[in-house]
Amino acid sequence: MTSQMRAEIGEQPDALRRTIDALLPRTPDIGALARETRQVLFIARGSSDNAAVYGRYLVEAHAGRLATLAAPSIATAYRRRLDLSGVLAVAISQSGKTEEIVETLDWARDCGARTVAVTNGAGSPLAEAAEVALVTRAGAEIAVPATKTYTTQLAALSVLGLGLGAAVAEDDLRRVPDEVARMIALTEDSPALPEIVEDLAKVPGTVVSGRGIAFGTALELALKIKEACYLHAMGLSYADLLHGPIAVVDAQTPALLVAADSGPTLPGTVALARRVRGAGAHAFGVGGGPELAEACSAALPGPALPEWVAPLGLIVPGQIMVENLARRLGIDPDVPRGLNKVTQTD
Amino acid sequence: MTSQMRAEIGEQPDALRRTIDALLPRTPDIGALARETRQVLFIARGSSDNAAVYGRYLVEAHAGRLATLAAPSIATAYRRRLDLSGVLAVAISQSGKTEEIVETLDWARDCGARTVAVTNGAGSPLAEAAEVALVTRAGAEIAVPATKTYTTQLAALSVLGLGLGAAVAEDDLRRVPDEVARMIALTEDSPALPEIVEDLAKVPGTVVSGRGIAFGTALELALKIKEACYLHAMGLSYADLLHGPIAVVDAQTPALLVAADSGPTLPGTVALARRVRGAGAHAFGVGGGPELAEACSAALPGPALPEWVAPLGLIVPGQIMVENLARRLGIDPDVPRGLNKVTQTD
Repeated sequence: MTSQMRAEIGEQPDALRRTIDALLPRTPDIGALARETRQVLFIARGSSDNAAVYGRYLVEAHAGRLATLAAPSIATAYRRRLDLSGVLAVAISQSGKTEEIVETLDWARDCGARTVAVTNGAGSPLAEAAEVALVTRAGAEIAVPATKTYTTQLAALSVLGLGLGAAVAEDDLRRVPDEVARMIALTEDSPALPEIVEDLAKVPGTVVSGRGIAFGTALELALKIKEACYLHAMGLSYADLLHGPIAVVDAQTPALLVAADSGPTLPGTVALARRVRGAGAHAFGVGGGPELAEACSAALPGPALPEWVAPLGLIVPGQIMVENLARRLGIDPDVPRGLNKVTQTD
Repeated sequence: MTSQMRAEIGEQPDALRRTIDALLPRTPDIGALARETRQVLFIARGSSDNAAVYGRYLVEAHAGRLATLAAPSIATAYRRRLDLSGVLAVAISQSGKTEEIVETLDWARDCGARTVAVTNGAGSPLAEAAEVALVTRAGAEIAVPATKTYTTQLAALSVLGLGLGAAVAEDDLRRVPDEVARMIALTEDSPALPEIVEDLAKVPGTVVSGRGIAFGTALELALKIKEACYLHAMGLSYADLLHGPIAVVDAQTPALLVAADSGPTLPGTVALARRVRGAGAHAFGVGGGPELAEACSAALPGPALPEWVAPLGLIVPGQIMVENLARRLGIDPDVPRGLNKVTQTD
């Protein structure tokens, strides 16, 4: 039996190609809008918030601008105005219909920010509310766990980074769709896939860790495990993990460690794998090249992409693992309990 | 048997009184330093990061300035300079010796920020590195789980808010030490305490939720449960909980819901309690007054304090619950496995 979620995972190469082709010509619009700003403020929830975490590291590490995450309740619950002149507010929502996010972007504009929307909803309230709308071309997503809408959001944020003058090569982004197609085949053939799924099927929870540009991927993988497999899954940066939650790791709590094949945070992730195994727990790698694979009990392959675009491929083996684990646990990954496709929060 | 952690919980009224008396006279220094800035950027890890979350909501909701959290790895791993002119960087560290935090504050200064330290380490490298050092007067803390160093950090951040011109009454802060003393007695007499401890002793994990000014309290309570009780505990804002992780909540996963007795986020927390119980799970309240208590299966009392200073008392019943739960599980709360008092991360 194949699920809708699995079908949508397979649609990602095409969805990414369409999105990249449609959005790369928008970099001058982004550059023009950003000219009067000096920092970025992301507005998002759920999977979109995990995409925002990628966006913040990308913008700070490669475009040299401060980039942080907004607290929507300041707008929607406390209704407090702040001085947001010089701020580029970037709201991210799959549907473009989550009222909290639309309301917070409206608030940002009223507070003096310039506004960008990243959404799969052409003509949605969020797309209409923004000065520049980066509309992803994921097509309709039916399964509740976001897959192709998430990776196309990352593609839109890569374009945002280019529009802000990130010192990276546009060609790296163009290589992503083919690499994602290769990742899907590689992951399904990997002997580590059934091994990790069997192990996770027996434990109450797991810890998912990554750092820097891969941190958002760790958060997104943890969210997927929670929503589609009902496992406790903590997504943590490796530094935050060492400040307390490392106590949870034991034979009953394996760690999933996510990293790009290169970049300044890889050595720390490899060291963490050794520490986790030293505590008697399993460490499962996702990406991180031969160095991380060697330090782990088992590892899923990561994309052969430069660190700045690695997250667009790095989540893919995780998505496939989650879809397999859900079915292994007797859960229909397409309709997790308690969730709707468009979440309304106030 | 009484633990060092329990003794330090009991020292909080005095520690808070000393800290408030020492730091309130510093508000003019903070105001002078902040005059050339327009926003706040917090730098912290672990419990101090949870204190920073309180700080950000306090500054945004009451002092009307943008306040967000830094990503230390941009400084320490990516070594990227950003334009931080107009930024007041506030670094928080119990010991003042965590190299990552000192290095990130130095980086912020080099990038043009004005600098504040909040630390219990008088003469520590962090205190020395900052233009204004707000040194808390918690005294020596021996138990690994932070209690009095955390609540005195919150007191220092309340003073920071006052220094930034928050439209709140200084007298509210002066009432906190007596109220914390009252909370300790109230919590230990509460019939809900053994009921909640017995329930949590039987489950693999829990979800801890709060919103706005109480969100940092939810994160800190979740961290304490992880580090001292080895339970899976997710700290989530109630909006993020509804975007996916709500699927985890069931008869095996109770939710702890944290709220001040008043404020704009209380109604949403009460509604969440009803939703959690509707899903067949236990909802345990911490604070939130009679409204939240009534909606929950059982509830610990919260402080009779205005929302802006409520977090200084709201964590206290949670600390007592964690200390009881650790001992009930046969864990020495003073020395959780895998942790040291000063965490070094790079």
